[in-house]
Amino acid sequence: MTARISRRGLLGGGLVAGAVTAIPTMADAAPDPLITRLQDWASTLGDGVDAVPYGMPTEHEKHVVRRNVGWLTADTVSSVNFTPIHALDGTITPQGCAFERHHSGAIDVRKQDWRLLINGMVDTPTVFTYADLERFPRVNRVCFCECAANTGMEWAGAQLNGVQFTHGMIHNMEYSGVPLRTLLEEAGLGAAGVVAGKWIYVEGADSSSNGRSLPLEKALDDVLVVFKANGEALRKEHGYPVRLVVPGWEGNLWVKWLRRVEVLEVPVESREETSKYTDTLADGTSRKWTWVMDAKSVITSPSPQSPIAHGPGPLVISGLAWSGHGRIMRVDVSRDGGMNWETARLAGPGQDRALTRFYLDTKWNGEEMLLQSRAIDETGYVQPTKRQLREVRGLNSIYHNNCIQTWHVKADGVTENVEVS
Amino acid sequence: MTARISRRGLLGGGLVAGAVTAIPTMADAAPDPLITRLQDWASTLGDGVDAVPYGMPTEHEKHVVRRNVGWLTADTVSSVNFTPIHALDGTITPQGCAFERHHSGAIDVRKQDWRLLINGMVDTPTVFTYADLERFPRVNRVCFCECAANTGMEWAGAQLNGVQFTHGMIHNMEYSGVPLRTLLEEAGLGAAGVVAGKWIYVEGADSSSNGRSLPLEKALDDVLVVFKANGEALRKEHGYPVRLVVPGWEGNLWVKWLRRVEVLEVPVESREETSKYTDTLADGTSRKWTWVMDAKSVITSPSPQSPIAHGPGPLVISGLAWSGHGRIMRVDVSRDGGMNWETARLAGPGQDRALTRFYLDTKWNGEEMLLQSRAIDETGYVQPTKRQLREVRGLNSIYHNNCIQTWHVKADGVTENVEVS
Repeated sequence: MTARISRRGLLGGGLVAGAVTAIPTMADAAPDPLITRLQDWASTLGDGVDAVPYGMPTEHEKHVVRRNVGWLTADTVSSVNFTPIHALDGTITPQGCAFERHHSGAIDVRKQDWRLLINGMVDTPTVFTYADLERFPRVNRVCFCECAANTGMEWAGAQLNGVQFTHGMIHNMEYSGVPLRTLLEEAGLGAAGVVAGKWIYVEGADSSSNGRSLPLEKALDDVLVVFKANGEALRKEHGYPVRLVVPGWEGNLWVKWLRRVEVLEVPVESREETSKYTDTLADGTSRKWTWVMDAKSVITSPSPQSPIAHGPGPLVISGLAWSGHGRIMRVDVSRDGGMNWETARLAGPGQDRALTRFYLDTKWNGEEMLLQSRAIDETGYVQPTKRQLREVRGLNSIYHNNCIQTWHVKADGVTENVEVS
Repeated sequence: MTARISRRGLLGGGLVAGAVTAIPTMADAAPDPLITRLQDWASTLGDGVDAVPYGMPTEHEKHVVRRNVGWLTADTVSSVNFTPIHALDGTITPQGCAFERHHSGAIDVRKQDWRLLINGMVDTPTVFTYADLERFPRVNRVCFCECAANTGMEWAGAQLNGVQFTHGMIHNMEYSGVPLRTLLEEAGLGAAGVVAGKWIYVEGADSSSNGRSLPLEKALDDVLVVFKANGEALRKEHGYPVRLVVPGWEGNLWVKWLRRVEVLEVPVESREETSKYTDTLADGTSRKWTWVMDAKSVITSPSPQSPIAHGPGPLVISGLAWSGHGRIMRVDVSRDGGMNWETARLAGPGQDRALTRFYLDTKWNGEEMLLQSRAIDETGYVQPTKRQLREVRGLNSIYHNNCIQTWHVKADGVTENVEVS
């Protein structure tokens, strides 16, 4: 059967030699029964509108779910699962697919039982209810949330054979909430005097409390206290009813089931910012207060969980890019392990601290490829190679691995996670 | 107990007189046990990450679902349900909450069984599979989809007492797909010769087929053949695996389970564009080819399903605005039935043919209100009053009712759907 995939005009005219699919055209001898025969679904009635009041993915997509990795943690209550980014497109992450990370499990707090205490160096220590929160001016903002440990298992080598597992501790949603600045000003910051050098300590209502210190400047800049994600209430596992959004900064700071914000002279130096979420270097010393997620990108298809399932010819290479420092300006793609680069097409202009989708519309002749992507953000920062990152950070680290990822695409389209020196 | 909601600085300084909530401050006599006592959720473990591979809304939000109206249609297979916009915020509509409208039920078509035939005045009648579709360059775009009959029950008077039912035949998602132009060019438009005056006829794979004619110019301009919404596969009820997206035009044209696109010299004048989806005027004649959805807005809160649940003081009035002609430039809000108007705050710059969220951060002293919102789009078009619309369109119509909606807010916060002359 002949090819009907030429992308004429998109690849410079003429049929693309070797482009083959299994689909006959009307000119072909063998008719396609899916075209020529009346199908059951065209001669019967389907489901009514009351079949599923809250719509779920079709059963044919039930493999597109969050997954965890058994050997990563002994228990699932203090653990993580991963967003199936190999199967998604665009930039918005549906809440149902958005990764979870919690330290003592996802807890159940009703709106009417939720309280936020703002205390410490404020004029009037204040308690807010959910109903109170709804009466302050709201903002909407799309932000990516990336766990500091995303790609953390790859420091020592290519370990996890799927982009869901190497890069899936990230999601990107439209949030609606109240600026934390508004609530801090409501409690009165007079007692904090000069803001510079001051800190806040944020706590969740779960058993771990996941307490973290943040510079007051950041809290007053763009941190949000949110109650909606992609238009609807937060999922329980994402902090229902209220969580913190800290644009561009590591996900561990995005405290869920938010319970308390204390204004302080000094940081608390809690477990989550000393023994955890610090970057141990080659000499054994640890970098701390490394909050910002540097520019990063990854090809989501082809990838180990999304191999090339068709023959040579037109191929869409697609992926995601993001930066905690602002907008993505450019993404380059290499097919030879970084020797040569092509500039990818951004699906839209880069958004400040939100995911950017990129595409490379190209042609594949069945050759083996070492696929890489490289992100450049508005500060001019260029995503580093694994070797460049190791030269600075060593091999002792778990967190903040934003290096260039390599996928080995074989002649049969099968794709694997590899390293190139 | 004293008020702790002042929005100091946001309402021009000083405490807002009369702002009352039931929440004590630290200065109050009675301690709040939800603050002072250890809660169960802070001393036990929550759910693990493998509890729900595909995350669902918490049970506390199970009332936020699509609903239908029994008396609207005799059966639910050829019917509609409505998006719970009274309970949503931001602009993105989650697929699970996005309204459904189908004419013979939601059918089940697997990706491997999906075919798209492009025939008629093309050089090479061509069949595309899902795998073929994935090999063409993709675009991402956020668009609203509004049923032409949205607000259709309100022509004769104020009938449905909830914004979910008066305005809920709308959703707004980020789509990923292939421009229809690309597929038409793949089949070769040479036979169509001059584009002007030519048409396409689009059909779905369901029993109704829901066939509609479209000018070829529109098909070549911005119509998309999409397979993802908000990043993931379409829900079955939204046309899985492939539907049409027709930016700014009535939802009936967004054919689901897309099966065929035929290029024609003349429109088909099908049932769906003659006896249905035409606008019958006062004199009995009908307007046809009224595809574009004119500028429209509605206040989603307060509204009958979202009354004011607190006392006087700070109040956030929120709603949605959209235009099939481009971007929303301004939204005005009236509290006295249209005599006086205040300009609302747009949560972000208006997006081309996508929903815009607006807020009015104001103060309510417990007075009765006749709440209205009025949208103005980039063409300068101003959303009409119900009276203005009736003067032109009469009372025989079902479709394209984009008039200004009025909510009557009573002193106790209860809100109802009313008309003002």
